[in-house]
Amino acid sequence: MKNVTLLVTTALFIMGCNTSGDNEDLNSQSQQSKTNYEDQLPSWNDGKTKKAIIDYVTEVTNPDAENFIPISERIATFDNDGNLWSEQPAYFQLFFTIDRVKAMASEHPEWKNKQPFKAVLDDDLETLKEYGMKGIGELMMATHAGNTTVEFDAIVKDWIATARHPTKNVAYDKLVYQPMLELLQYLRANDFKAFIVWGGGVDFMRAIFTEIYGIPKEQIIGSRIKTEFDYNNGNPVIRRIPELDYNDDKAGKPLNIQKIIGKKPVFSSGNSDGDLQMMQWAASNKYKSFMLYVHHTDSVREWAYDRDSHIGRLDKGLDQAIENGWTVIDMEKDWKVIYPFQ
Amino acid sequence: MKNVTLLVTTALFIMGCNTSGDNEDLNSQSQQSKTNYEDQLPSWNDGKTKKAIIDYVTEVTNPDAENFIPISERIATFDNDGNLWSEQPAYFQLFFTIDRVKAMASEHPEWKNKQPFKAVLDDDLETLKEYGMKGIGELMMATHAGNTTVEFDAIVKDWIATARHPTKNVAYDKLVYQPMLELLQYLRANDFKAFIVWGGGVDFMRAIFTEIYGIPKEQIIGSRIKTEFDYNNGNPVIRRIPELDYNDDKAGKPLNIQKIIGKKPVFSSGNSDGDLQMMQWAASNKYKSFMLYVHHTDSVREWAYDRDSHIGRLDKGLDQAIENGWTVIDMEKDWKVIYPFQ
Repeated sequence: MKNVTLLVTTALFIMGCNTSGDNEDLNSQSQQSKTNYEDQLPSWNDGKTKKAIIDYVTEVTNPDAENFIPISERIATFDNDGNLWSEQPAYFQLFFTIDRVKAMASEHPEWKNKQPFKAVLDDDLETLKEYGMKGIGELMMATHAGNTTVEFDAIVKDWIATARHPTKNVAYDKLVYQPMLELLQYLRANDFKAFIVWGGGVDFMRAIFTEIYGIPKEQIIGSRIKTEFDYNNGNPVIRRIPELDYNDDKAGKPLNIQKIIGKKPVFSSGNSDGDLQMMQWAASNKYKSFMLYVHHTDSVREWAYDRDSHIGRLDKGLDQAIENGWTVIDMEKDWKVIYPFQ
Repeated sequence: MKNVTLLVTTALFIMGCNTSGDNEDLNSQSQQSKTNYEDQLPSWNDGKTKKAIIDYVTEVTNPDAENFIPISERIATFDNDGNLWSEQPAYFQLFFTIDRVKAMASEHPEWKNKQPFKAVLDDDLETLKEYGMKGIGELMMATHAGNTTVEFDAIVKDWIATARHPTKNVAYDKLVYQPMLELLQYLRANDFKAFIVWGGGVDFMRAIFTEIYGIPKEQIIGSRIKTEFDYNNGNPVIRRIPELDYNDDKAGKPLNIQKIIGKKPVFSSGNSDGDLQMMQWAASNKYKSFMLYVHHTDSVREWAYDRDSHIGRLDKGLDQAIENGWTVIDMEKDWKVIYPFQ
């Protein structure tokens, strides 16, 4: 497992890892803003960020307020990687992919001599690096397609139950952010309908997250590969075929939100430039909207990275957040704990 | 308007219009099956069909029953055209398309000499016929794209408020089936989550139906054209571009259900062969499922058509319904009224 970590961390997905210093004043804990609200976000430190969230929710759910939002329009959209769970040292779906290549290798003897599979099997960093994102795409198609939706679901469930994060040494689904779980619950309690809108595979996430987040499968939106329907002599299946159908990232996010939800979010939460168009889309809502960026500032309890990271880069998004007064979470200062087990 | 009717009815979308006689025994009102249930489906005549629906819902929502279905899995999928509202003498979205060609003609002087637009503007039946489905596709792209999602929504809302059905002479949205409105409400009251899954345009339907059916936009699935995100100097819009993105018909229905909902329906309702794969998909559910076909048997109050119709053809679907014991609604016998205004 250490080899895998090394392989991934030091090659394709090396992070910039500069702890942000630019943005600390945005989230400084203002003593004067402390109020005696009932604490529905106990893992959030009191301060500007927490207050902004609660003030917003309180205002737009008040029927007497000018900015009241009808329940049917309370659509909240959340990115996942780096926003609801960690994404370092690489997107967890990539670890799944690598583990699958190894698990499937015995059925594919040809992979021993076929790149980029050989590189994964040999833990051969330098060679895999040469194949870049195209190589990763090949690995994903080989491991995510060629099965039915039911089979794939079982494979992911089995993986999440057994695989361990290479450095944190816990199951990947333990690495969700406790403060964000509370935020999801808080929004739900105020009749917001939260959707996950992420760049990873929609069926990968549906296999893992429904219970953890309290978000039903039909509110999970993501990238996907193509599928075909097979009547299969009266036992119909949907087969996953190795071709990208939709990339739910950047401008793909608002487009998918419009296609699938048909409403503009009033609450949008992300952590990277890949979420920027989703933020812009929410910011243009005729209802008062709330844009929330997670800024990875905690190098001790989690990871610290932003403008120079290859994973979850937050650069233009941070500029626009500052420019437009969007709320930016300083993980180090705003969150009492990161993970539920802490 | 009569010209339009003539144009459409007698050309591309001529119906077979043979009143079904094959299937009457399936839905005969059995005196012995009458029970004293509380009537939540008042527009349904007592009989086999109504009893089958109520028996199913009562059983699968009973926590003590072997076939109990958890609330999260109570997914119901409904076709729209010919299933929740009428579809004769042509799909209503086609009337919208024709009306739009005429409304937009002044901005497109070239259409006077360009087919198939010229044929629509001239009410020239024979010529339009020559252009077939490809011609209809061209008309749809010209009238449904080239605007933003917000603009298109307003156009559809304006049309539905003013247009009148050519023979029924009422607004199109009055031509919803009262018994199906009751069924949607009955399922909702029993914690089913109903989705529309139709072959028409998803944004067309979202502009019209949310309130009538009590189904939120995010539970409406349909065909769609491609879109692009335009940041538009800080006032982002989504532009509709004239290219088919997804055809939500036949096998496209279960595929879209899997993509968007991620769960297999337990209750599926349709009226044509275009719904057959959705029915097969629901029928393969590990939970007890219910497949419901609307059979258009009422030539007096609505229209009667099935195996030979160019619109809403029900042929293979009827065979499979009979073979598998799916429930088939005989509109003439099972429904006390067709439309809410009756």
